Amino acid sequence: MSRILLTGFEPFGGEKVNPSELAVKQLEGKTIAGLEVVAGVLPVVTVKCIDEAVKLIEKYEPVAVLNVGQAGGRVELSIEKVAINVKDYRIPDNEGNQIRYAPVVEGGPDAYFATIPVEKIADSLVEKVIPASVSYTAGTYCCNEVFYGVSHYLRNNKPGVLNGFIHIPFILEQAAGAKPPRASMPLEVIVKGLEIAVEVVAEGLEK
Amino acid sequence: MSRILLTGFEPFGGEKVNPSELAVKQLEGKTIAGLEVVAGVLPVVTVKCIDEAVKLIEKYEPVAVLNVGQAGGRVELSIEKVAINVKDYRIPDNEGNQIRYAPVVEGGPDAYFATIPVEKIADSLVEKVIPASVSYTAGTYCCNEVFYGVSHYLRNNKPGVLNGFIHIPFILEQAAGAKPPRASMPLEVIVKGLEIAVEVVAEGLEK
Amino acid sequence: MSRILLTGFEPFGGEKVNPSELAVKQLEGKTIAGLEVVAGVLPVVTVKCIDEAVKLIEKYEPVAVLNVGQAGGRVELSIEKVAINVKDYRIPDNEGNQIRYAPVVEGGPDAYFATIPVEKIADSLVEKVIPASVSYTAGTYCCNEVFYGVSHYLRNNKPGVLNGFIHIPFILEQAAGAKPPRASMPLEVIVKGLEIAVEVVAEGLEK
Amino acid sequence: MSRILLTGFEPFGGEKVNPSELAVKQLEGKTIAGLEVVAGVLPVVTVKCIDEAVKLIEKYEPVAVLNVGQAGGRVELSIEKVAINVKDYRIPDNEGNQIRYAPVVEGGPDAYFATIPVEKIADSLVEKVIPASVSYTAGTYCCNEVFYGVSHYLRNNKPGVLNGFIHIPFILEQAAGAKPPRASMPLEVIVKGLEIAVEVVAEGLEK
Repeated sequence: MSRILLTGFEPFGGEKVNPSELAVKQLEGKTIAGLEVVAGVLPVVTVKCIDEAVKLIEKYEPVAVLNVGQAGGRVELSIEKVAINVKDYRIPDNEGNQIRYAPVVEGGPDAYFATIPVEKIADSLVEKVIPASVSYTAGTYCCNEVFYGVSHYLRNNKPGVLNGFIHIPFILEQAAGAKPPRASMPLEVIVKGLEIAVEVVAEGLEK
Repeated sequence: MSRILLTGFEPFGGEKVNPSELAVKQLEGKTIAGLEVVAGVLPVVTVKCIDEAVKLIEKYEPVAVLNVGQAGGRVELSIEKVAINVKDYRIPDNEGNQIRYAPVVEGGPDAYFATIPVEKIADSLVEKVIPASVSYTAGTYCCNEVFYGVSHYLRNNKPGVLNGFIHIPFILEQAAGAKPPRASMPLEVIVKGLEIAVEVVAEGLEK
Repeated sequence: MSRILLTGFEPFGGEKVNPSELAVKQLEGKTIAGLEVVAGVLPVVTVKCIDEAVKLIEKYEPVAVLNVGQAGGRVELSIEKVAINVKDYRIPDNEGNQIRYAPVVEGGPDAYFATIPVEKIADSLVEKVIPASVSYTAGTYCCNEVFYGVSHYLRNNKPGVLNGFIHIPFILEQAAGAKPPRASMPLEVIVKGLEIAVEVVAEGLEK
Repeated sequence: MSRILLTGFEPFGGEKVNPSELAVKQLEGKTIAGLEVVAGVLPVVTVKCIDEAVKLIEKYEPVAVLNVGQAGGRVELSIEKVAINVKDYRIPDNEGNQIRYAPVVEGGPDAYFATIPVEKIADSLVEKVIPASVSYTAGTYCCNEVFYGVSHYLRNNKPGVLNGFIHIPFILEQAAGAKPPRASMPLEVIVKGLEIAVEVVAEGLEK
């Protein structure tokens, strides 16, 4: 059976959990629309986050890669359209690197669009009453870095493999008691949303 | 059996639903911690909103009144502490009245605090992983008007009856597809939150 | 000549300056619409902030008191309508006190409205192209505490003296380079706004 | 003398003015760091906005192009890093076109980075106490469209000419009286910021 690789991230920025890790682990091992879900967790550390993602791709040989990351403050699922060749960290990564104004890949193209059908995924989610939209900025932290790095790796090494990135909000556990208040979404809603995203990716592959 | 009156509001501001109406209807008829839940829906119309609330109080003779309203944009349950003697509408009500800089009750006190244990409710919700906090402004629209009007009526006519107001976020149905994006909370989470609030109110009554 | 007392606050929350201190010092000693401006700076410390404000009132015997405070994140001048009898600090004060769910004055009324003409001040500012509006929450930190404490003191000791509170945004110096970005307003615009507020207060006194 | 072309936009979205038009007109005809400022105003209409920008470039033969646009809600000057090959309008343009999920240039690269020194401009502005930062999304409306279209035209036709885009906040006139409140910046601060940006561009050219 063909595989889809889902990755989450470890916690960062003082959080105890990362909902992206929790979400992809819930989907790991499931079969969705004919695709077997394999999963992994990436470090929130520059360069190593891409290396680990590439290692997982080489291990699992998936037909599609969906990286997932926490975007605190967002109120819906953000189906990211564009990875840019920039690292500009607002906070240090988990090994203390705070990078400013640097490229992800020296000499790489300015940006890569996702190759999964982001518009169709966003529209399907909305239709199924899950707040979501296409997002045109994945930030300039490790999320964008992995998105760009994986895009770059796949275009150069496995051009048939689709990839994309989905940003998810905080979950209720991260919002309850937070001062100032935080937007959040229950983990179940996020997991259901990712499942729908995988279905739309799978449909595209069948054609 | 003693009764608690829950009220919601009809839709306003171009919305198709009002989650406060949906939520209180789901709880109507239930027994929570020994209290029978009775419910009603208030018009989003100045003066009439208070009149309808008072009518429901006189009909049901509850031991506590919990008014519930939609606060679009908020990210958690807001357990309102204070009703102020001000009407200052940012948008017209459902009959087209746009009131500025006016009192709810001519000559009334500047404000009334809720008499339900707002701090205990907020803390209990957080403990049960439902994003919530005490809020110190219920706005200056029909929500605050009902909150103030009911407070004023009860202090003057039924001083033993407790009352308070809870603001709730948009639900997923109102957020999915909205531009710009909107914070939201599933109706089930809101309903569960209101149930916990009623339990805390009931505990206070038992003492 | 009659005096108006303007107070600002010392810096807090890790800031190097407090624009309210800078603003009132620029107006100190001026004569505006027949009122001599006297000024003072209050500590961001519970109880002491009120004590210092009262000391200044007793020293200067002003006909009106206008307390000014920084409200980081706000985008306009907030002419505060209501002081509530609550202390609920999100961050510790400058002596490390972090108070939750407590009254400013045990047994005091739930709230006091400002006695300066807040609506007229807001409308005059807008007319003179300074972003401003009446605000219905002064928070639950030292700003609200001073506003409530001064209101309580004046009603009980000097009932003819008017008082009110104006919240002001960060200034450019606090916003330039801040991550994440911060709303701000140049100090000159804030000072001009306060001057207009004093003029409106003075007009009211003349009648 | 070498010329720099500054463009603003006509008003849109129900606004009476567009601060980008007002700002570039104030700089038109000035000489800044050895560059003569020429200026033009672009329609907020798909395709036509690019056509007009290209016409101005062909007319003036500038050594650098700086497009400026209003970004309501932003709190600082956004020095845009990246133009993406997407049109996805949240509101219709001034001729009623509401485009979703379309490319600016069919078959064009996914994105173009600005060729002016965006990082240096942002840092210089902060140093001179003007709130500013590098922004990594210029949106998907006419602003991004012009930015992408001009980038594409210049790379293919005049590869030596530098270009970039700066988003500016609402001005005080657009914020005073607005409900809900709006972040704003005085026009003078914006104009001073653009002047500094032009200086930094000029310095780069001299090398």
